[in-house]
This record gives sequence, C-alpha cells and structure tokens, in this order.
Amino acid sequence: MEFLKNAWYCAGWDYQISQGKESIVARKIAGKRVVLYRKRNGEVVAMEDQCPHRQAAMSMGRKEGDALRCMYHGLKFEADGRCSEIPGAKDVPDSLCIRVYPAVEKDNWIWVWMGDPAKADPALISAGVGPGDPDYITKPSYVRVNASYLLENANLADLSHLSFTHEGTIGMGRATAQIVPTHRVLPRGIKTDYWTRNVPPPKFVRHLFEPEFRCDANFDITQTYPCTWVMHFRVFTAGTATEGESDGQLVMDSWTSQAVTPRDDRSVDYYYSWGVSRETDFPGMADMLKEGIDAAFLEDKRVLEGQQIRIDENPNFRQMGIGIADAGPARMLRVIDQLIRAERESEQPVARIA
Amino acid sequence: MEFLKNAWYCAGWDYQISQGKESIVARKIAGKRVVLYRKRNGEVVAMEDQCPHRQAAMSMGRKEGDALRCMYHGLKFEADGRCSEIPGAKDVPDSLCIRVYPAVEKDNWIWVWMGDPAKADPALISAGVGPGDPDYITKPSYVRVNASYLLENANLADLSHLSFTHEGTIGMGRATAQIVPTHRVLPRGIKTDYWTRNVPPPKFVRHLFEPEFRCDANFDITQTYPCTWVMHFRVFTAGTATEGESDGQLVMDSWTSQAVTPRDDRSVDYYYSWGVSRETDFPGMADMLKEGIDAAFLEDKRVLEGQQIRIDENPNFRQMGIGIADAGPARMLRVIDQLIRAERESEQPVARIA
Amino acid sequence: MEFLKNAWYCAGWDYQISQGKESIVARKIAGKRVVLYRKRNGEVVAMEDQCPHRQAAMSMGRKEGDALRCMYHGLKFEADGRCSEIPGAKDVPDSLCIRVYPAVEKDNWIWVWMGDPAKADPALISAGVGPGDPDYITKPSYVRVNASYLLENANLADLSHLSFTHEGTIGMGRATAQIVPTHRVLPRGIKTDYWTRNVPPPKFVRHLFEPEFRCDANFDITQTYPCTWVMHFRVFTAGTATEGESDGQLVMDSWTSQAVTPRDDRSVDYYYSWGVSRETDFPGMADMLKEGIDAAFLEDKRVLEGQQIRIDENPNFRQMGIGIADAGPARMLRVIDQLIRAERESEQPVARIA
Repeated sequence: MEFLKNAWYCAGWDYQISQGKESIVARKIAGKRVVLYRKRNGEVVAMEDQCPHRQAAMSMGRKEGDALRCMYHGLKFEADGRCSEIPGAKDVPDSLCIRVYPAVEKDNWIWVWMGDPAKADPALISAGVGPGDPDYITKPSYVRVNASYLLENANLADLSHLSFTHEGTIGMGRATAQIVPTHRVLPRGIKTDYWTRNVPPPKFVRHLFEPEFRCDANFDITQTYPCTWVMHFRVFTAGTATEGESDGQLVMDSWTSQAVTPRDDRSVDYYYSWGVSRETDFPGMADMLKEGIDAAFLEDKRVLEGQQIRIDENPNFRQMGIGIADAGPARMLRVIDQLIRAERESEQPVARIA
Repeated sequence: MEFLKNAWYCAGWDYQISQGKESIVARKIAGKRVVLYRKRNGEVVAMEDQCPHRQAAMSMGRKEGDALRCMYHGLKFEADGRCSEIPGAKDVPDSLCIRVYPAVEKDNWIWVWMGDPAKADPALISAGVGPGDPDYITKPSYVRVNASYLLENANLADLSHLSFTHEGTIGMGRATAQIVPTHRVLPRGIKTDYWTRNVPPPKFVRHLFEPEFRCDANFDITQTYPCTWVMHFRVFTAGTATEGESDGQLVMDSWTSQAVTPRDDRSVDYYYSWGVSRETDFPGMADMLKEGIDAAFLEDKRVLEGQQIRIDENPNFRQMGIGIADAGPARMLRVIDQLIRAERESEQPVARIA
Repeated sequence: MEFLKNAWYCAGWDYQISQGKESIVARKIAGKRVVLYRKRNGEVVAMEDQCPHRQAAMSMGRKEGDALRCMYHGLKFEADGRCSEIPGAKDVPDSLCIRVYPAVEKDNWIWVWMGDPAKADPALISAGVGPGDPDYITKPSYVRVNASYLLENANLADLSHLSFTHEGTIGMGRATAQIVPTHRVLPRGIKTDYWTRNVPPPKFVRHLFEPEFRCDANFDITQTYPCTWVMHFRVFTAGTATEGESDGQLVMDSWTSQAVTPRDDRSVDYYYSWGVSRETDFPGMADMLKEGIDAAFLEDKRVLEGQQIRIDENPNFRQMGIGIADAGPARMLRVIDQLIRAERESEQPVARIA
C-alpha cells in the first residue's frame, strides 16, 4: 500500500511523550517505524526507529540530554540526526546520521511529517479542539483498529451508519440515514454540513431527557487527508426551522477531533477526543461523552475488522454501490487518490536527511 | 485447495441455531464464510457472510422477522437473498441481492449445499443417527482440528490406527491392526465391514468387565464424501463363529455419526456423536461413550496437526506406502479426486443466485 | 536460509534427555525436525522427526526398548533407522527406514551431525566446560531467541556491546568498548584475546566490592561455527602490567560455554553455562553468575529480536559500518560464508541413511 509521504501524521497525544527517563515512544506511521522523545526544551524529536549501523531499535536506546544513544553498540545521535559519537572511534563520518522527521505539536496532538522536510509546512495541519482548549472540557482517548486506514476513512466519511452500527450508542434513530449529505471538496479533504431535525437524542444520553424530548442537531465536519476528522456538533431543542440554523435552544455545543494514523496496510492508530463547551457543560458530561464515543468506536472496530478480513479473503469480489452512504467515501477516496498520484508524479529523488 | 461445490456440508448441530435474538451463527465451509439463522417457522437460512455492498459481516447483523439486516449501512436482505431495503434510497436494484445456500436439517445436523442450487438434492445426504433418534441415547460433541480434511478423512478411512493412537482410549488391543479390511466403493464413498473377535473391550470401558472378559465386535462403516462417517458398532460376548455374525450375546448396540466439514485448507469443524440403543443402555453409558470419543478425538487432533505441520514443512518429502493401513485412505482419496474432477469437467458457468 | 550441513549442532543439555518413559525430545535443528531419546545403554539416538509412512511426528511415539514406535499406524523403528515392524504386514521392505543422525555427548551437551554421516568426526566438536566438570561449579541455562543465528553470532563476536546493552548487568563500564580486539582466524571460527585493565567490576557483582575496587580482566574466547562460544574469563585485582598477563591477584577463574543452535531462519535455541573454579568459588557465587548471564541474555534477546524485525521490514536498508564493533562479526560471517560455500561446491549426491 502506498501512503502519502508529504503529509502530517498524528503520532499521539502530547501527554504520551514526557520528560521522563523512559519516555521514548515507538510508533509505526505510514509503514515506517518512528521513535519520539522530547528535548530538554520540550520540543519533540521524531527519528527513524532503527540505528543506521545494524538496524537496532533506537526506541530501546537511552536519552542523553537532547541526544538519543543506541544501546546496542553505543552510537549517539543528536536531535538533528547527526551522529556525535562512535564508541572506540576517533572520527565520525559525516555520512553517518539518522533520518529525523519534522515534528510539531498542535491542539495537544504530536504531528510528524513523513516526506520531504522542505515541504513540511505546519499550516497544513488541520485545526482541532484539543484537551488543552480552555473553552471546552475535552477528554482524549485512543483505539487500535486492525483494518486499512481507507476503510476507517470511508467509515468516517459517511454518517448513515450511525443509524445502524451505532444504533445503541451515539446513533440518533433512523433519521441520519435519510439525509442526503452535501460535500464540499477541499484541497486535501471534504467538508460536510448535516442537519437532522426533530429527532430523539442519541441512545447513550437519552436517559437524561423526557421520553418525548426531540432535538435538532448539526454536524459540521471537516475531514482532511491522511486523516483528521473534526466535527463541530451542536444540539438544540427541536425548533420550527426546516432549513438553515435551528431556532431551538442550544443544549450542547461540542467539538470532536479525531486523527487516524495508518500504521501499515492493515492497522491504524486512532487518537480522538470529544469536548463540550463550558457554557453547555454540566458535571459528568465530558466523561459521559468519552464513554459514549469509546463504545461507538469499538462498534466500528468490530465492523471494520470483519470487513477487512472478508475483503482480504475475496480479492475478486465485486462490491455494489447503493447511493447515499457511498457519496462521502467515494469523494474521500478520490481526494486521497489524487493526492497520492500527484505526489508520485512530482517526485524527484529527494535529498535524504540521513 | 479445491473443494467439491456440489455437495452437502454439515454446518453444525440443530441446537446450535436457535430462535434467540443473538443466534446468528458464523461458519466457514469449504473456504466460504456462511451465516446461518432461523426463520420464524424454524427453517434454517444460510447466506454468504458478507454484505454485497461493502463486504461487512452479515453475521454481525440483526434478525428482523425472517430477514437479516446488515448493521453497517442498514441493507436488509430477505431469506431468499433479495434486498428489500436500502436506507435512504427509494428503489432497490434487482441486481442487489445476497447469495443464499440451500440448507436443510437431517438427523439433528444442519446441512448446507455449496454449489448449484438446482442440484441440491437432500436425498444425497447420507443418513446418521442423531441425538433426536428415540431408539438411541446419543450425545453430540465437537472438535476443531487444524489440519486438512483430507488428513482427517484418511484417518477415518483406516481402523488400524485404533491400536496405536487410541491404545489407551477406544482402541481394542492389537487385533484391529491385523484385520484386512474389505471396502466396497459407493457412488460417493466407501463401505467397510470389519469383525474383530475374541478381543478385550476398549481400554476406556475395560474396568466395567472382569479381566478375562473377551468380546466380538462389528464395525459397519459408511463413509461418504465430503464427509460423513457413520458406523453401526456392535459388541457381543466372544462367540465361537469365526466368520459372519457373532453367535455371542449382544452387549452393546450403538451408532456413531460423524461429520467432518472443511473450513479451509488447514482446518475442519468436526461434529460427532455416539449413541447406544435403549435395549443395551444402562445409566451413565451414553456419557461415558461421549467421554471416550472426546478423548480419542483429541488424540487424533494432536497426531493430525503434527502431521500437517510436517507435510507443510517438507513439500517434497516422498511418503512410503505400507499396505493394510493405506487401503481405506487410498480408496477414499480416489473417490474424492474423481468427484472433484467430474465436477470440474462438467462445470458450466452457473447462474449465481446473488 | 542455507545452513551448514556437515557440522555438529547442539541439541541441548544431557539432563534434558532421560531414561524416562516420556523423555522423547523434539527439536528443530538447522531447519529439520529431530527427535531424540536414549537407548537402554544410555546412548542418545537422533532421528528425523517424521515417520516415512505418512509424516506423523515420531516425537509423539513410544519408546520400546531401544526402538521408537510411531503411534499413528504403529511402525517400529530401531535405533539404527531400520523399520522392524509394520503392523498387519508380514514383510518390511528394506527401503522403509528413517533417517538417523549421528549423535554424541560432550561436555554435558548433546551434539547432532546434520550432514553426511561419514564425515561426522567428534573431534570437530569444540571443547567446553560443562556442568559436569569437577574443577568448576557450573550452572546450565537456556533461552530461545527469535532472530537469525547470524545476528546472534554477530552479537557474540563483538564485546563492545557489553558497555551498552549490558551496562546494568555484566558490562564493565565503557572501557570494553575502547579495546581494539585482535582476532585469530581458526579453520572453523575465530579466537580472541582481550584484556581490560583497571576497571570497576561488572554491575551485577559490584555490591560485593568496595566502591574504589578496580580489576583487570581477561576474555579468552574461542568462537566456532555453527556456533559455540567458549570463554575463559579471569578477573584479577588491578595490577601494574599494561600488557600481557595481569600481575594482580586472581579473584575469579571462570569458564562460560555457550552453544547457539539455529532452529530455522528466524530462531535459535541457546544453551549456555557459566562456571567458577573451585579455587575462586565462594557460596552463592555460581548461582549469581547464572542470574547475571540470564539477565544479560534477555537484554540481548530484546535487542536482537528488535533488530531482526527491522531488518525484515527494510530489506533494502543499507547498513553502515563503524569499525571496532564490526571487526569480529565481519570475520565470523566470512568464516561461515566460506564454510557454506565450500560445502556447496564439494557436495556430491550423498547416500542417505534413510
């Protein structure tokens, strides 16, 4: 599977990489092993997770100041990738260095650029609302899904499955499956704006309301490749407006920010959060949102892993399109495909850092 | 590995598929994933276990009356394979349906036909004596064996291994290994009739008899492809007859009915039972038979899995024939080979249900 | 991966194969499954671990006197590989036999020759100091490492990694990494003699000494392919000599004898011991040495398995040499390569025992 190289990939939550002695974090991102740690000034360093000498794991190494030492034969690498010591040798050849990937933090996520460092523009990272945002009470979470990130993206690009896969958790009844979504194609993603009106609240919060309670809900979603999925999700008491902004009362103003990182062909690391605005929060709310989304993402995990197994077992099976549920995934896959094709065509032999 | 398509395969015991809400059973049969459930009238439905839309697992779906709904995007399939609902769509194209396999129940087993439905003649199912037979007290059981069904068939086609592999359980001493078996070739199997005379009873029941007790035993076996193995097994007190029916006294009249279902190249689901006639039963007898055969089939499992590993590791190893123990397996393999060859030759592009 | 065939491979410690009924030991050596047991006179028999009939595991068989019977169809094989019984058959064809590998015991290790039996000269086994040696108190141990034996050999051919990988266990500070080793190439290995002087004792024994204690240590190592690694290791109080034998006082006189057996491309069985001379022993010493080396070899296991994963994931990665740490491994690999090449060239169709 070919991954986009010139892209920011999420390597986890900021709190997962500390200044602790043992906080040397091993990840797999877009097929490559990457080791992450912090310099003393707090900046995150992302290096190829194999020593250029004999391919021992750098993530089994030792932090020394801002450097990382391989604990097989003791080669020491500075945070810029330069080898500064070969035990027992006087000189270190300039050619002996390790690949360093541009890494930045944004919205409490760690981001790593897997392609040409010259192109690593932090402005390309799509905005999220992280646990550190003062206006929202946000809980971070995580799940590993053993399926292609394309299946995970397709899942995220379609809300109709909320009515079925998530019927008992975050689903809002059958209404969601009826909405004809409008997608706007962005340079690296798609934008979607859904309204669902006069519907019961999602199952996992329904006990908080009277049985006859109905609401309007707005899903304002920005999905960008390779993939973040960020949604401003607002719930109102059911109003009378049939299009545009609801004229009901705002019950919940929330953001859920999600990053899907392909590890390899068949697994993703999925870092996500859901936060509620201080104005519409009440005690226990943020924890309940986390519980609800955790439950829902285990439902997705089960479906996607079952789907992946069947796809792999039946390489010649001809899937059939059905319309509504396919629109988002199809657009998403087209964007991804175009980005990869464009990168492949423009690719010049890039000067490697290492 | 090529499996016979036009054949009935056992998909389990009838009690394994109930009217319960969650009783949606996933199987792998001859390389295909199959989902099974019951209609409200009790009839078993067997469908391809992947949604034609995006290959999600139908076995993660939901029963709705006689239909099964995929819980990814909500497509609903009737028991005949027709899609009756695409959420959010007005029309359902006729081409959108799911493959349904003919399924019947017989002798407390569920049978699924994996080939051309037009040829699915229930008369081709070989008879067994199931747990529901009023004349026999019969306990059903099961084991998964991680080896090819051909190794399992070869094992069943030879009784000589009873003396060794099952020496401590259902074996009856060395006599069994001496018998020159006579096999009669059937259209889809082989029939074997063994007598062993004046031998000690099998190890696992020997404590029930005086040490000097000797018996005559008759193994009347019908093995049919892809495979059932059904034996009428009778034990008499040792008589004086040296051929034909024993003139001793009937001690046990029993039937063991066994179905080996290939899941894929390297594993089988094995559904078996052993029942004793009401006339020769006594309290605890049927449970003891089940214990004995369970123990014996774990012995076979260990041997066959060890054999499979070695065969896979040494693809060029030239096995050597030894005579007696090979006769049954060789005939069995020839029948299977002929059936598969005949099917391959006669095969026309079959109109798929789905 | 091609293994040297005409070589002695270690199949374990002598105490692992007893006269017990169930002491039938299954090993994998250089890609082949081998079964080992003892004859009544104590001699070890090593046979191919698959019955020539249907490839059932001989290691699931039964000892009968000096013979081993396959417990699938009951074929009985004598210790010389001859089949002496086919149940139910009168005659046994001469061609029906099982491959027997030359096996000898030396220094409490069991050795098996995987190639042409005519060339199986026990003099080719390199000497070790086993647990049975009366002059040393020696504890045997074992670890499985899931990496190629070439990585394990390379690890053993370099002492510089002691300073890093084993910093907290058997390492002796940074000094080891500075020594320029001298290697002498043997017909089937390399010999190395290191001195390290005026250094602190290894971490795992440091608590036994005053903080200011310093020592001289001599590593006298003979490594032979496919691989034994035997070291006479002596520690002295720090003396004044700067080359040759230390003029300090002998504190510990020890031998560690290690045998690395490739099981297949990606795993080794590693049988090792470390023993201290009766003269320099004190209560608890030998057990402490075993604890120290066990801990160190788990450190190596972690590093080598991490390295193997990365090598397999990046088949085109170009490793870079660094000098000192590479000298030993490079020589070792050259010897192995030459031995395999020589064997391949000289190879005539060998008359198989079986």
